[in-house]
Amino acid sequence: MRAAPFFFIMLTTLLSAAQVSAFDYWQTLPSSPVIPENNLQTPEKIALGKQLFFDSRLSQRGDVSCNSCHNLSMGGDDDGAAMNMPGRDIIRSAPSVWNVGYMSTYFWDSRAASLEAQATEHLLDPNIMAMQNATLLEARLKNISGYAGIFANTFADKQISLQNITQALASFQRSLIVPGSRADQYIAGNKAALNEKEERGYHLFQEQGCLSCHFGTNFAGPAPGPGLKMGDAFFELYPTVRGSLYEQKYDMLSDLGYFHVTLDPEHKLFWRVPPLRNIADTAPYFHNNAVNDLHEAVRVMNRVQFNYPITEKQVDDIVAFLKTLTGQYPTIELPRLPESHGVSLVQ
Amino acid sequence: MRAAPFFFIMLTTLLSAAQVSAFDYWQTLPSSPVIPENNLQTPEKIALGKQLFFDSRLSQRGDVSCNSCHNLSMGGDDDGAAMNMPGRDIIRSAPSVWNVGYMSTYFWDSRAASLEAQATEHLLDPNIMAMQNATLLEARLKNISGYAGIFANTFADKQISLQNITQALASFQRSLIVPGSRADQYIAGNKAALNEKEERGYHLFQEQGCLSCHFGTNFAGPAPGPGLKMGDAFFELYPTVRGSLYEQKYDMLSDLGYFHVTLDPEHKLFWRVPPLRNIADTAPYFHNNAVNDLHEAVRVMNRVQFNYPITEKQVDDIVAFLKTLTGQYPTIELPRLPESHGVSLVQ
Repeated sequence: MRAAPFFFIMLTTLLSAAQVSAFDYWQTLPSSPVIPENNLQTPEKIALGKQLFFDSRLSQRGDVSCNSCHNLSMGGDDDGAAMNMPGRDIIRSAPSVWNVGYMSTYFWDSRAASLEAQATEHLLDPNIMAMQNATLLEARLKNISGYAGIFANTFADKQISLQNITQALASFQRSLIVPGSRADQYIAGNKAALNEKEERGYHLFQEQGCLSCHFGTNFAGPAPGPGLKMGDAFFELYPTVRGSLYEQKYDMLSDLGYFHVTLDPEHKLFWRVPPLRNIADTAPYFHNNAVNDLHEAVRVMNRVQFNYPITEKQVDDIVAFLKTLTGQYPTIELPRLPESHGVSLVQ
Repeated sequence: MRAAPFFFIMLTTLLSAAQVSAFDYWQTLPSSPVIPENNLQTPEKIALGKQLFFDSRLSQRGDVSCNSCHNLSMGGDDDGAAMNMPGRDIIRSAPSVWNVGYMSTYFWDSRAASLEAQATEHLLDPNIMAMQNATLLEARLKNISGYAGIFANTFADKQISLQNITQALASFQRSLIVPGSRADQYIAGNKAALNEKEERGYHLFQEQGCLSCHFGTNFAGPAPGPGLKMGDAFFELYPTVRGSLYEQKYDMLSDLGYFHVTLDPEHKLFWRVPPLRNIADTAPYFHNNAVNDLHEAVRVMNRVQFNYPITEKQVDDIVAFLKTLTGQYPTIELPRLPESHGVSLVQ
């Protein structure tokens, strides 16, 4: 493996030397993400979270649910549609919600330290769900009689509150696990799981440098667990190698990423390393959806992160490997939502 | 039952006198709608239709699927959201897709004679799915490799064509049946299915005149079967009794309904009689979503269709009966959609 490119880890607890020596860059998907102690999983909470995830009444105009842009019939994203939606000023790609529980921070710029915080921000963002405030959101759900009993059966305080809404949404999302990719089988030791071309891609992914950032559980750097707390972020400078024509072609310099969170000039163009699982199902690519082809995404990353020589055959091999990161999506029963009988709440 | 108000039936084959004498205004939901001979139901076609129904790539920008506005997690409609969607000029309420196979025509103005024709129009309507033409729609689905095999297994001609797309969508929609409402149980003879208040509403629904238009299988007039061909429409003049303050308050006179289809002045303000099944789950009401309360909808209909005396208690009883028209929604597994690997088709 070549040396890692310049990157920046904001870890309050760095991995100890002993942990590093035992660390395996190639990891399979654990059966569950780390569950926070202040929001333990229960079947009731997951079921309620699923209802809320599909409930467009969580948006002010009633026109979108979480599932509208994080589509569980597909790769958990939106095919790039949200950035083109009329009446909304959405500037970044909707990331996949599958396996999202394995991340340590949320949003492209890492500004939310938990799924719960991320959900709160989505609900109140005027360009996304656009609820004006928590009170109005809570009042709306309180007007849906069926939710009262469901919240009462789910939470000790029995309340329909923003906190409980976001806890349920986060619990459901932590259950959205896509295991069993052929890459996982290969990493676990089944060398027959990849064909020759994919195996070449696997080795190139490491040798070319991709793995130096896209390692670990979610191919997004360290995952929460021993040595990494929730909220600790793993960033990458993008682009790292400056001066390519791609910078203008794919508009790489106008959105400064993490800088917008801290206003620290040293954080300009820092981005949370995005996960690569199911990457073949989440085009278009990059924070701004600028590249709509996985081959081109590999070419671009190689140029602006490493600027190593690469052939088209090598790009094709890496893409073949990336396609083996697609797991076995679970089946999901469409939830039935409680009604506000005889009246619409979004009119 | 009081005399029927003025209404207008455009039937190429009128019910014969013998059929009329045997006709029962109160009918339960048959186990299946009439299936057209040129689009017989098959499990494959229904399954494909479900995928297409949930596939937002059938819209030009990829931002809505059929299910976005005909939400199967709820009453099969949109809570009125579509008319408020930015960037779309939608002037009429999205009707429920549940039990839609029991209708003889489609759209509020009855302009489509089949579910297949209705689907074609939705796909190409610049304000709805907004595909520019059939060729572009077909080309998009042909770029999703997984669909090729599914269409080949489903249709004799194996083609991804607009005709096959709309046939599959129609077949799926004919499977969207919500049986077992308490009203059905009552009509079938189980007099314990309604409580006293609901039973009073049942009788008032008939005595006050509602049943004179909202009769039959779908409480929308005659259903396709012996004596009524698909494409035959059952219209109502709305408002029938002119001069109420509601006309302005609920904007009843600006959209002329069926007149826009025929341009025949005699058809001004004619509307297809809407179905009432699951009506408590499909607020807001009327073609323009003008009334967001079922009680008010009953008051308005009584005033502008009959102008009979009615008390608030009677309105409340009728609403109680209308709420018994909600059936037992089937569970639906979220379909998994074939992907266009490594590229988005809606960018």
